[in-house]
Amino acid sequence: MDPILQANEAFYLAFQEFDLETMEGLWSGRPTDVCIHPGWSILRGWADIRESWTRIFSNTTYMRFAPSDVEVHVVGQVARVTCVENIYAIQEGHTLHSQVAGTNVFEHIDGRWLLTLHHGSPMRVTRSATPDADA
Amino acid sequence: MDPILQANEAFYLAFQEFDLETMEGLWSGRPTDVCIHPGWSILRGWADIRESWTRIFSNTTYMRFAPSDVEVHVVGQVARVTCVENIYAIQEGHTLHSQVAGTNVFEHIDGRWLLTLHHGSPMRVTRSATPDADA
Repeated sequence: MDPILQANEAFYLAFQEFDLETMEGLWSGRPTDVCIHPGWSILRGWADIRESWTRIFSNTTYMRFAPSDVEVHVVGQVARVTCVENIYAIQEGHTLHSQVAGTNVFEHIDGRWLLTLHHGSPMRVTRSATPDADA
Repeated sequence: MDPILQANEAFYLAFQEFDLETMEGLWSGRPTDVCIHPGWSILRGWADIRESWTRIFSNTTYMRFAPSDVEVHVVGQVARVTCVENIYAIQEGHTLHSQVAGTNVFEHIDGRWLLTLHHGSPMRVTRSATPDADA
C-alpha cells in the first residue's frame, strides 16, 4: 500500500481506537504542527494538540471512520491528503452521523510520512438519542 | 514583504473585492486544486472552484477580512499559511461577524506562489439583521 495512504489510515485508526500513544507517533511533534478540529480554533504545537485528543477521546464512547473521496497530492517532501470523513460516533449519549471534510498534510521526515497538519470542517451532522441512551 | 504573505493577502483582497479575474490568477488552475468553504463539501479543480466564487460573490453585498494569528510554514516548494479569518460581511440582508480557521497551501510554480488548497472552517458566527435591511 502507498505509504502516504498508509499513514492516513493509521491516523484514522488511532483516532477511532482512542489511541493517544499511536497518535503521538504519527505527528512530527514539531512546534509548527497544526490541528483544527471541526468548529475549534487553531491549535499549534503538540502540547495543545495532544490535549485536544485527550478531550475528544474522553467525551466519545464509540467512533468509526469510513473515509471516501480520498485524494493524495505529493510535491517533494510534502504530501497532502484530502478526503471526506464519514463518521459514526456516540458522544455524550447521542448517536452522531457526520461528514467532515478533512485535509491532512504529511512531511517526509527521517524516512517516515508524519502528520504536520490536520484540518477538519463539518459538512453535515445528524444527531439522535442513542437507542440505549436511557437504558 | 514576504512573497508568501503577499500571495495570502492578495487572496483575501480578491475575496473581499469579489474579483474573480484576480482570484483565478492566484490559483495554480490544476485539476489537483482543492477548495473547502465553511460547511461546504470538497471542491476539486478550477471549474468547480470558480463556480463557488461566483456563487459566494453574487450572494454577498459587502465583505472585509482581517486575518490574525497568521503563520507561514515552508518546506521546499510548498508553503502553508494558517490563520484566523476575522470576517465582517453583509449576506442576504444580514450582517455577519464570523471567525473562520483558514488553511492556505501555496506551491512555487514558475517563480510564483500559487494557491493549490484553501480550506476554511467556521469557528464562530454571529448573525443580525443589518440596520438598513428594511430601508
